Amino acid sequence: MKTRLESDSLGSVEVREDRYWGAQTQRSLTNFPIGSDRMPIRLIHALGLVKRAVAETNRELGLIPADIGRAIADAAQEVFDGKWDKHFPLSVWQTGSGTQTNMNVNEVVANRANEILGGELGSKDPVHPNDHVNRSQSSNDVFPTAMHISAVAEARRVLLPGLEMLRRALEAKSGEFSHIVKTGRTHCQDATPLTLGQEFSGYARQVELGVVRVEAALAGLHELALGGTAVGTGLNTVEGFAERAIARLAELTGEPFVPAGNRFEAIAAHDAVVAMSGALKSVAASLFKIANDLRLLGSGPRCGLGELELPANEPGSSIMPGKVNPTQCEALTQVCIEVMGNDAAIGMAGSQGQFELNTFKPVMIHNLLRSIRLLGDASASFTERCVEGIRANETRIRESLERSLMSVTALVPEIGYDKAAEIAKAAHRNGTTLREEVLASGVVDASRFDRLMDFEAMTRPSPD
Amino acid sequence: MKTRLESDSLGSVEVREDRYWGAQTQRSLTNFPIGSDRMPIRLIHALGLVKRAVAETNRELGLIPADIGRAIADAAQEVFDGKWDKHFPLSVWQTGSGTQTNMNVNEVVANRANEILGGELGSKDPVHPNDHVNRSQSSNDVFPTAMHISAVAEARRVLLPGLEMLRRALEAKSGEFSHIVKTGRTHCQDATPLTLGQEFSGYARQVELGVVRVEAALAGLHELALGGTAVGTGLNTVEGFAERAIARLAELTGEPFVPAGNRFEAIAAHDAVVAMSGALKSVAASLFKIANDLRLLGSGPRCGLGELELPANEPGSSIMPGKVNPTQCEALTQVCIEVMGNDAAIGMAGSQGQFELNTFKPVMIHNLLRSIRLLGDASASFTERCVEGIRANETRIRESLERSLMSVTALVPEIGYDKAAEIAKAAHRNGTTLREEVLASGVVDASRFDRLMDFEAMTRPSPD
Amino acid sequence: MKTRLESDSLGSVEVREDRYWGAQTQRSLTNFPIGSDRMPIRLIHALGLVKRAVAETNRELGLIPADIGRAIADAAQEVFDGKWDKHFPLSVWQTGSGTQTNMNVNEVVANRANEILGGELGSKDPVHPNDHVNRSQSSNDVFPTAMHISAVAEARRVLLPGLEMLRRALEAKSGEFSHIVKTGRTHCQDATPLTLGQEFSGYARQVELGVVRVEAALAGLHELALGGTAVGTGLNTVEGFAERAIARLAELTGEPFVPAGNRFEAIAAHDAVVAMSGALKSVAASLFKIANDLRLLGSGPRCGLGELELPANEPGSSIMPGKVNPTQCEALTQVCIEVMGNDAAIGMAGSQGQFELNTFKPVMIHNLLRSIRLLGDASASFTERCVEGIRANETRIRESLERSLMSVTALVPEIGYDKAAEIAKAAHRNGTTLREEVLASGVVDASRFDRLMDFEAMTRPSPD
Amino acid sequence: MKTRLESDSLGSVEVREDRYWGAQTQRSLTNFPIGSDRMPIRLIHALGLVKRAVAETNRELGLIPADIGRAIADAAQEVFDGKWDKHFPLSVWQTGSGTQTNMNVNEVVANRANEILGGELGSKDPVHPNDHVNRSQSSNDVFPTAMHISAVAEARRVLLPGLEMLRRALEAKSGEFSHIVKTGRTHCQDATPLTLGQEFSGYARQVELGVVRVEAALAGLHELALGGTAVGTGLNTVEGFAERAIARLAELTGEPFVPAGNRFEAIAAHDAVVAMSGALKSVAASLFKIANDLRLLGSGPRCGLGELELPANEPGSSIMPGKVNPTQCEALTQVCIEVMGNDAAIGMAGSQGQFELNTFKPVMIHNLLRSIRLLGDASASFTERCVEGIRANETRIRESLERSLMSVTALVPEIGYDKAAEIAKAAHRNGTTLREEVLASGVVDASRFDRLMDFEAMTRPSPD
Repeated sequence: MKTRLESDSLGSVEVREDRYWGAQTQRSLTNFPIGSDRMPIRLIHALGLVKRAVAETNRELGLIPADIGRAIADAAQEVFDGKWDKHFPLSVWQTGSGTQTNMNVNEVVANRANEILGGELGSKDPVHPNDHVNRSQSSNDVFPTAMHISAVAEARRVLLPGLEMLRRALEAKSGEFSHIVKTGRTHCQDATPLTLGQEFSGYARQVELGVVRVEAALAGLHELALGGTAVGTGLNTVEGFAERAIARLAELTGEPFVPAGNRFEAIAAHDAVVAMSGALKSVAASLFKIANDLRLLGSGPRCGLGELELPANEPGSSIMPGKVNPTQCEALTQVCIEVMGNDAAIGMAGSQGQFELNTFKPVMIHNLLRSIRLLGDASASFTERCVEGIRANETRIRESLERSLMSVTALVPEIGYDKAAEIAKAAHRNGTTLREEVLASGVVDASRFDRLMDFEAMTRPSPD
Repeated sequence: MKTRLESDSLGSVEVREDRYWGAQTQRSLTNFPIGSDRMPIRLIHALGLVKRAVAETNRELGLIPADIGRAIADAAQEVFDGKWDKHFPLSVWQTGSGTQTNMNVNEVVANRANEILGGELGSKDPVHPNDHVNRSQSSNDVFPTAMHISAVAEARRVLLPGLEMLRRALEAKSGEFSHIVKTGRTHCQDATPLTLGQEFSGYARQVELGVVRVEAALAGLHELALGGTAVGTGLNTVEGFAERAIARLAELTGEPFVPAGNRFEAIAAHDAVVAMSGALKSVAASLFKIANDLRLLGSGPRCGLGELELPANEPGSSIMPGKVNPTQCEALTQVCIEVMGNDAAIGMAGSQGQFELNTFKPVMIHNLLRSIRLLGDASASFTERCVEGIRANETRIRESLERSLMSVTALVPEIGYDKAAEIAKAAHRNGTTLREEVLASGVVDASRFDRLMDFEAMTRPSPD
Repeated sequence: MKTRLESDSLGSVEVREDRYWGAQTQRSLTNFPIGSDRMPIRLIHALGLVKRAVAETNRELGLIPADIGRAIADAAQEVFDGKWDKHFPLSVWQTGSGTQTNMNVNEVVANRANEILGGELGSKDPVHPNDHVNRSQSSNDVFPTAMHISAVAEARRVLLPGLEMLRRALEAKSGEFSHIVKTGRTHCQDATPLTLGQEFSGYARQVELGVVRVEAALAGLHELALGGTAVGTGLNTVEGFAERAIARLAELTGEPFVPAGNRFEAIAAHDAVVAMSGALKSVAASLFKIANDLRLLGSGPRCGLGELELPANEPGSSIMPGKVNPTQCEALTQVCIEVMGNDAAIGMAGSQGQFELNTFKPVMIHNLLRSIRLLGDASASFTERCVEGIRANETRIRESLERSLMSVTALVPEIGYDKAAEIAKAAHRNGTTLREEVLASGVVDASRFDRLMDFEAMTRPSPD
Repeated sequence: MKTRLESDSLGSVEVREDRYWGAQTQRSLTNFPIGSDRMPIRLIHALGLVKRAVAETNRELGLIPADIGRAIADAAQEVFDGKWDKHFPLSVWQTGSGTQTNMNVNEVVANRANEILGGELGSKDPVHPNDHVNRSQSSNDVFPTAMHISAVAEARRVLLPGLEMLRRALEAKSGEFSHIVKTGRTHCQDATPLTLGQEFSGYARQVELGVVRVEAALAGLHELALGGTAVGTGLNTVEGFAERAIARLAELTGEPFVPAGNRFEAIAAHDAVVAMSGALKSVAASLFKIANDLRLLGSGPRCGLGELELPANEPGSSIMPGKVNPTQCEALTQVCIEVMGNDAAIGMAGSQGQFELNTFKPVMIHNLLRSIRLLGDASASFTERCVEGIRANETRIRESLERSLMSVTALVPEIGYDKAAEIAKAAHRNGTTLREEVLASGVVDASRFDRLMDFEAMTRPSPD
């Protein structure tokens, strides 16, 4: 493989001729042989967008020559478009400011811009990765800016649509099942009745509120660090730079990005990321509950609760023929646990900034983008391959309902808790029905009993 | 110790004569000899308030006799007022619905109401703990209602005031220190200058945003499960009950409590609690960073950074005379870690509901109330005994600033990154000053250098 | 309340006359009004033991006068015996070295020793809290020494007995249920048979291995920091002090305590505590699984799996008469989650040492002792009030077993996976039995089918 | 792209002609479009090894024809050797038993074995993926067997060597720095002296103990579930199968693998994985502390503690020329946090088994293998690129040591704590040295003072 020489302030290094990165990227490749996680490509794209917006702003402000500014903007747009994805090979496990990835983008954009302008790769001429591409910036403000942009974009692209799809499917099932009265279960024990539609309405509401929480957390991510440069002061920018560049980003993305209320905070801490992860954790808690319920309600086919039939997407067992398993529930619950683990990492990382910089940026965005993507994808898959195909086993549901003793609760306002308890316990002890025990006890007569034992009426408050 | 007999649906048990609780409380006391955590007293008070509001509503709706309703409301108010605190001895580690604590409140209120009405303890007459005190309710809706009310109340009482106090103190310090230019530090390495006031402004902003996040999470807690009874359907309530009772709670507390958008969700899941804990975790991350910075900036007195002097509140060492330690920072950072641990517990617990009920309610509210209280108390203590007394060691700060090589950054727009790097490295290698190396290199002359080396100007963007 | 004056290097403070603590304790009481957690009393007792062993060693080595040494040892023994528990009022949320609690013990022991010797409280004469009681020690080595001692003692006192009790009960049930063949369940779906005894043997084994893991972790806690004093060097001790004092502690406790392999490690890090907590987390994972299985297997009584009947210890519901809930399972699973949260806190705290000291000692031992106690207590309660009283519903179990289609697996070695799958799916589709479908298909005849359908034989490998 | 038809019990599907997988793999590929995590290749390799050992055992036991057995063993060995890596495309986020990945291996091995035997891909003839390759197995026992094997192998391959390398480097530095006396720091405040060698000896000991903990946890992983098949009973195996197959695995790997003490436990729970992760977390806590200390001790170059000089591996900043950052410390501490997050996920997943199966196997092994790899790689990189190149700045260290006031502690045995405190505080207040204040106070004379102020002697107990 042919190489060319690239240089930085520590000297020259050889880089594969077909790669657009420069010396600092090459050093980082060698210096961090740790695991196999690459810096998330969505973050790289966001950095591309930032470089474009800044180049246009620098040009407008006369800080860099117009042709150089134009070439940078074009090259950066290509990075955003995913044209150079394989030129961003760096590990997540690098410097905690993401400097090497910022330089990776600076180097690729500079080389590509030089190419556009007829220059040579590695020449830094006419476009210099630091003096032109990184002009008015530091990794310390650019990297968290790209963290926020990529997280917002990924939430819009995959998480919110996935959750919306799930919510709608659950609401549709709630409607479809609204006429099916079933036994409730609390403490895993038989309880008073509700409709299967009501049960699903609870799930739908969980997802709906999850969307609300995610949206609220996105607001925190709309504040951008850009303009703070190295420590938040904005050294080597000019007045108005941040406002202009961020307005450009808002325009390019359609998101209401604004300059951070305080740039020292936005560089030294990433509480907005911690808070976003907290919102994702609440979503994970919701989805875990829903998926776990569905697999329990769908347990069987013959020795479980058997109230629901989940779609059979694949053979379930390598040894047990004919077995069908709730695999979408399993994929989703595993994802939820992964998100909880990611949240633990993000929370700790968020607490560990020192002085003017939090140097846990890569681990934070790596986990945040994974959580966003996993929850979104898994919600969509779960919706399509599980929720939408769920069918109720009405026969089984009705049998259970009629066997349950907990409808005795409806008698309480009439006969009191203690007497009702006696009857329920007698029926349990004797293996009889409530009706038999009630009539034997004489507390109410048959016609009154039958009026009170209206399962459907038990699914709502009495009409006064 | 004399006893009386109390009874429930399992039979009779002896209860100490001077205790107002009944049979179910007594059974729970025996059945859960696990650790020493008691159900949080703030939750008990909230249950008292709920019992009062419900009794008044039941009376208005004609569901219970007026005199019984009045006696219950009075007794419940006394519980809210803390008059009967020692009559709530139950462990956190009990049934996951908190039923036993709800019954504890029902029993104490019933006994006390009977006493008010001239009845006898243990008689359940004229006031019955289930049929009257618990009328229109189930533990399953009442307990989470009290969880929300107590969390909101505790946040208002201790957390938000503590954070506000801290924010104000940090802002005051930011103002006080606005004229002190110091070396920045990124990656724990010398960086470009900022003012000590700017550094503190970042801390203040972190706390300010924490308040915003907590307030947003409180909104989720304003939805109350009350009216759902056993499984969310509202069985054994009448139409309009929930709205009236919750309006009463809103009136009594001054908080905008409303009926849950979906009562099935509000009983089977506690995502709002998970989300609140997520907000608390983001606050913990903020406070950890602030406290850790202060102890590092205050390290010394002779062998550390020594930029700040923290108040000396007590002798620091049992062996080293004269030692003074950043003990408030240590208490606060420990609290932050506790809150992160609590958040891990709350998140997992929130995911583990089954069917119509989450049976991890006690562990959730136990941890949530602890996190709220600890963060609030520790913020107040840290403010009063540490932040407010911080003094800047201006001599030390100035010395550091002048030694730093990173102000070379201000030369970059003029001489380029690569040349600036050469100069900084030469100064580092030779133990010289930037000025010496710049002049030796001839890139700019002395007067230009001195104009560019305006530390104060480096703390903001250039004026265009 | 009358007071006396106590003093320390910062001056004098008033202390309630009936309290034995001194100035530093009093300052700490005022300085840390944070939450309500007190430093664990088991840790205080362990500090008492350390003070005794050290006093005896100091006396032997001639470092303190014999009478003073004897009085200190006697007073310290009283602390260990719990005689002065209410004189240790300090918060967990104090200095991260636990210095204030070490001084609390020094002060109480000094005052009590002075009293024994006829001196006055507050006089520091003839016994001085630092110069005599704390002689040859620093909080930095004494506090982690007491952390280890108290954790080992509490594990022996409550955790290991609780786990052993549970293991024995599960093994007993495994034997009792060894003849009951039941349907297995994987993915919550019907699977091949096993005996109920085998199912319980898995639980018993989980607990057995948990004991092994806890014992292994205790080995790490047998290394003591004592003798390291302030930073690990042993300044202000004499050669041989640590070995003697620790040998004394080993003798007094019957535990194989030894000097830490490296005292710098033992003061600046608490990885042994992190590892112990990791072992506790694995136990929590085990117990969660067991308790959750039992509540699912015991779900019903009429609309669940209903294979097990759990003991009814109390009325289950405030609204549903006759309801009985798996409350011990709920208490235990909540405890398990608490332990997982504690582990998150301990792990983070363990990572945060700086230089010669980890200043997260109180939060670590607070959580570790809570986890140990909670797991031990909850295991014992769960054993006694749940496991021991479990009964199998053999009728229900047999019905399920016979309905299950997964015994088709036993035909695979004879007819192949694909054919067996066809048969199982046909039976499922048609609502028929395996027997009907097998005979209809003609793959094996009735007598062969019946020989292969030996449920009992399916619970073990075939005899060759 | 050309395709062929592959079939399973649900029917036929098209598979790319150049892929060796079958119908179930293809279905899974379509059914789980969730994120981008692939099932770890190390796990696939381990499954290859299991398939080989089992094929050889099945052949010996006469359960499958000899030629088929031989072909399977050969094909499986190729999988182990990594020859077919790109034929294992499935997501981590699939069924929780890993069935689809087990079938992926069965299908690839069957197709490859058929090819070896002259058969056709997709024909299942003469080698059938279930009836031959999966003979005597279920995913439920095979997958956890491969989990254990791969974790042990990866620990041997990367983790233990990485930790050993780090330990040796730290010990070497401890020796190299054994003559350098420096100021200790506790609570980030100046403390009594120790040698820099002692400081590093603490780090080395942390890593040494980490190795001990990892080794202990590996013991738990040596128990294998193989032989349990679907639910632990060993249905469809013959007596002696498990022992033979596992002995073969032990032989092939050189690891002391044994049959699980209880196969129900080994399938339904993965506490051994939880415990291993707990050990990894304790290692992460250790490494975090070490790396954080090094970056703080190396802070500067001019405005920090500056006691150490860490190697400069790359330019540190995109904006600040000449800046060099502790990037290896940052990579390592980020890895440590990732491992803590993984541990949270593993612990929760370990608790969530239901009945005869834990269906969180993929998320557990995904995280465990990542933690093992990341810690091993990062330790090696940190050793090579940071620890080995560390140099002490002896001038700076000596200056600090001489300025420190905490050597006053050495006077305590002679003059008492209270007097020593007075002197230290006077020196602090007056900006003087200890010597000046001691002589002014007259407590000891100059020659005695100088004898007591022997810094080197302060780094160990006095010689009696």
